[in-house]
Amino acid sequence: MSKGKLFVVAGPSGAGKATLVHALLAADAKVQLSVSFTSRAPREGEQDGRDYHFVSREDFLARVNRGEFLEHAEVHGNLYGTSQKWITDSMASGLDILLEIDVQGAQQVRRLFKEAVGIFILPPSGDILEQRLRNRGTESEDAIVRRLANAREEISRVEEFDYVIVNEHIDQAVRDIIGIVRAERCRLAAQSERHQALITSLKG
Amino acid sequence: MSKGKLFVVAGPSGAGKATLVHALLAADAKVQLSVSFTSRAPREGEQDGRDYHFVSREDFLARVNRGEFLEHAEVHGNLYGTSQKWITDSMASGLDILLEIDVQGAQQVRRLFKEAVGIFILPPSGDILEQRLRNRGTESEDAIVRRLANAREEISRVEEFDYVIVNEHIDQAVRDIIGIVRAERCRLAAQSERHQALITSLKG
Repeated sequence: MSKGKLFVVAGPSGAGKATLVHALLAADAKVQLSVSFTSRAPREGEQDGRDYHFVSREDFLARVNRGEFLEHAEVHGNLYGTSQKWITDSMASGLDILLEIDVQGAQQVRRLFKEAVGIFILPPSGDILEQRLRNRGTESEDAIVRRLANAREEISRVEEFDYVIVNEHIDQAVRDIIGIVRAERCRLAAQSERHQALITSLKG
Repeated sequence: MSKGKLFVVAGPSGAGKATLVHALLAADAKVQLSVSFTSRAPREGEQDGRDYHFVSREDFLARVNRGEFLEHAEVHGNLYGTSQKWITDSMASGLDILLEIDVQGAQQVRRLFKEAVGIFILPPSGDILEQRLRNRGTESEDAIVRRLANAREEISRVEEFDYVIVNEHIDQAVRDIIGIVRAERCRLAAQSERHQALITSLKG
């Protein structure tokens, strides 16, 4: 069994990360989402264990102290973290793992997993980004202003990623992310490992 | 208009290169196959600019003298060549260009186009490769033996390529090559160039 890959998906709130990630998961059974821990309250429709592991701030900090997290960060006053052991075990079993994460977290992950593939999602314009955030209807004006400032900061680090998807037409963006995962599996290094016996036999 | 990419597809006879290439061309209108120049007259049904660029012998030789060809050869008194100028011009106009070529030719192309993306097509086994060559029914026993020896030689150079597709299930292999082209368009360098204005405006 050859080792799976780690895909790190980042981008500002309102870029449409979640929609893309869920379309990818639906299209490709070999990709599994890493479910983060968070101290924030669930939004409507969010399920514990599927969208996040929702825990109290105290519980979260205890896990930090036990060294359970690959990375953790405070975003908009809420704590978010990723379980390192679950990722390592899943990749060893041949699954490709997908992390939906903020830019800071992505940097931390790539320090630990050098071969992680970074994918940055961009909105097609600043106006559309703002409109998408307002359309959620779940955020206060303050929260929206904070998210927009944060978006500018995140976007300034797009150069740290391997791929950039501009999420203008969702069907196109979905094909992009599915294509990136397929292409990464076809990279020489991955294929040489996966098909070593075949290549040796063909060389005769 | 951002510059297109050059994709170089190689692999042994019987790996199924032509089928994959034509499926990609049918699926992706932004990819264009490199069309060779020839001094021979068009056969019935052949279209100038689609099957070949039909030019006079004088025109062809003038292009040779101007150093326009990546490679050229005389076959049965007719001249055939791959135009470097056509590839460069097409890429400049934003098209992705695809070259179906042998391993030696691929090496030459990559010396001239450093950022060319190399895709190697492998058959799923030596037996299937041989079977596919025999099923063509057009080749003598000698030709088949020669092609199989040549295949071993070509496969020994798989490490020179960026991507490897194992053409076992054609529908999967087609998705692989389509995915590779999409992914390459999403690479940071390509997207930074294509969406420079957007990124600058989003950084605020």
